[in-house]
Amino acid sequence: MRQFKATLAYDGTDFHGWQIQPDHPTVQGALKQVLETIECGPVDVQGAGRTDAGVHALGQVASFSLVNPIPEENLVKAVNRLLLKTVRVLAINSVSPDFHARYSATGKLYEYRIQRDEICSPFDGRYAYHHPYPLDEAAMIEAAAAFEGRQDFRSLAASGGDEVESTVRTIFSSTLHREREGEAERLIYRVRGDGFLYHMVRNIVGTLLDVGRGRLAAEDIPKMLARRERAAAGGTAPARGLFLVRVEYGPAADTTHTTTTP
Amino acid sequence: MRQFKATLAYDGTDFHGWQIQPDHPTVQGALKQVLETIECGPVDVQGAGRTDAGVHALGQVASFSLVNPIPEENLVKAVNRLLLKTVRVLAINSVSPDFHARYSATGKLYEYRIQRDEICSPFDGRYAYHHPYPLDEAAMIEAAAAFEGRQDFRSLAASGGDEVESTVRTIFSSTLHREREGEAERLIYRVRGDGFLYHMVRNIVGTLLDVGRGRLAAEDIPKMLARRERAAAGGTAPARGLFLVRVEYGPAADTTHTTTTP
Repeated sequence: MRQFKATLAYDGTDFHGWQIQPDHPTVQGALKQVLETIECGPVDVQGAGRTDAGVHALGQVASFSLVNPIPEENLVKAVNRLLLKTVRVLAINSVSPDFHARYSATGKLYEYRIQRDEICSPFDGRYAYHHPYPLDEAAMIEAAAAFEGRQDFRSLAASGGDEVESTVRTIFSSTLHREREGEAERLIYRVRGDGFLYHMVRNIVGTLLDVGRGRLAAEDIPKMLARRERAAAGGTAPARGLFLVRVEYGPAADTTHTTTTP
Repeated sequence: MRQFKATLAYDGTDFHGWQIQPDHPTVQGALKQVLETIECGPVDVQGAGRTDAGVHALGQVASFSLVNPIPEENLVKAVNRLLLKTVRVLAINSVSPDFHARYSATGKLYEYRIQRDEICSPFDGRYAYHHPYPLDEAAMIEAAAAFEGRQDFRSLAASGGDEVESTVRTIFSSTLHREREGEAERLIYRVRGDGFLYHMVRNIVGTLLDVGRGRLAAEDIPKMLARRERAAAGGTAPARGLFLVRVEYGPAADTTHTTTTP
């Protein structure tokens, strides 16, 4: 039995999110099915973050264990050959038997893309939220920083989400900047933290859009967080603009583990 | 009655090509339907090039005439509001009444993208042909130039295509180069000419791939063209890598025309 860490990229457009669901295509379900074909038996697949329907990943992480002695370098090819093209395994590494994609994670980086051009290119429409209307971008940039630090983010947790004991999380960095790629003008929001509540990134972006529209002042964000209720914050920005960029692990968990044959 | 020139971008993945077909989604059909909704009457839509199913456009051109007096600047917004998001009208200009998207065109530029990385990103899979196997790229670059000039391209015309009197075309430039964008390594083939036969660009790319695989020598391309039969050239490269980049018009046809109310 060897434990593996897989790094995946996916276009979330056609999936009902990461988490396995009966009768709906999900990324976890697709990966599990492919691994079970290779293993010729049941495989339990854990993901670092349960991305919602329509959310994309550049570096989602999954963990699973296999008995099948297929070499690591062949495993990537075998999995990609069987997977839908909208999901690609970028790397598979042997890891310590106690590695768990979710519980071993020490941080995550998300990116949210807001397309600012009047006309959204048909090649960007699946991968950005198109918002061509006026926004006070300077106020949004200022407001983004207010989410940094160890804070209670209850105001930004979806009410329908998981029951969690604590809604306190540490945000290491929260920044917004304007980016030009070819013809496209975009606002890029990047947030890195030790963990995120359900819908938290999309709710932060919805709140930043409220700041941009002048409905909320950047300096009122601490007050909004202090209210600890969902109604205090802005709406939930659409899923298609959100990317899980990478999942971080402490140096111990991330190094390749020399597997011992069982 | 005013004559218009529209410039369009589209993701061809979900369309059965440009040309209108009963019971299948086509770009021409989608645009015609939207223009007829705005016009409240029949509209005849002409395209500069009939892109195949799965082929994309960054700058396709269509022409049509309208009686409806809606101002040009509102027309772009109105059309984009009604069109599928996978098609965007980038500009609409008033043109001379004798302007015709196809017959007035003096040149076209196409681009073909070959993705060279071992793993093709899920965000590139719809917009490139993934070919991770060894290719003699230097030979392909040399071979690309052999298609330039005024030549008979019968060997590169799909046998099932339109009956055309002449298969002689002038290729102004035909170049291949390697490009790096982020993590992705790509071969980009660009070809600009006064006209193209059915499947011609995809057949040139198929021939270049044969050169890359060592099945055909770059210096044998003139001989291949001289045979004037489809079997002499390489296969047809997949549609998803092909983009119609722009359509060119003589300076007279391209300038904005001052319309006179009928």
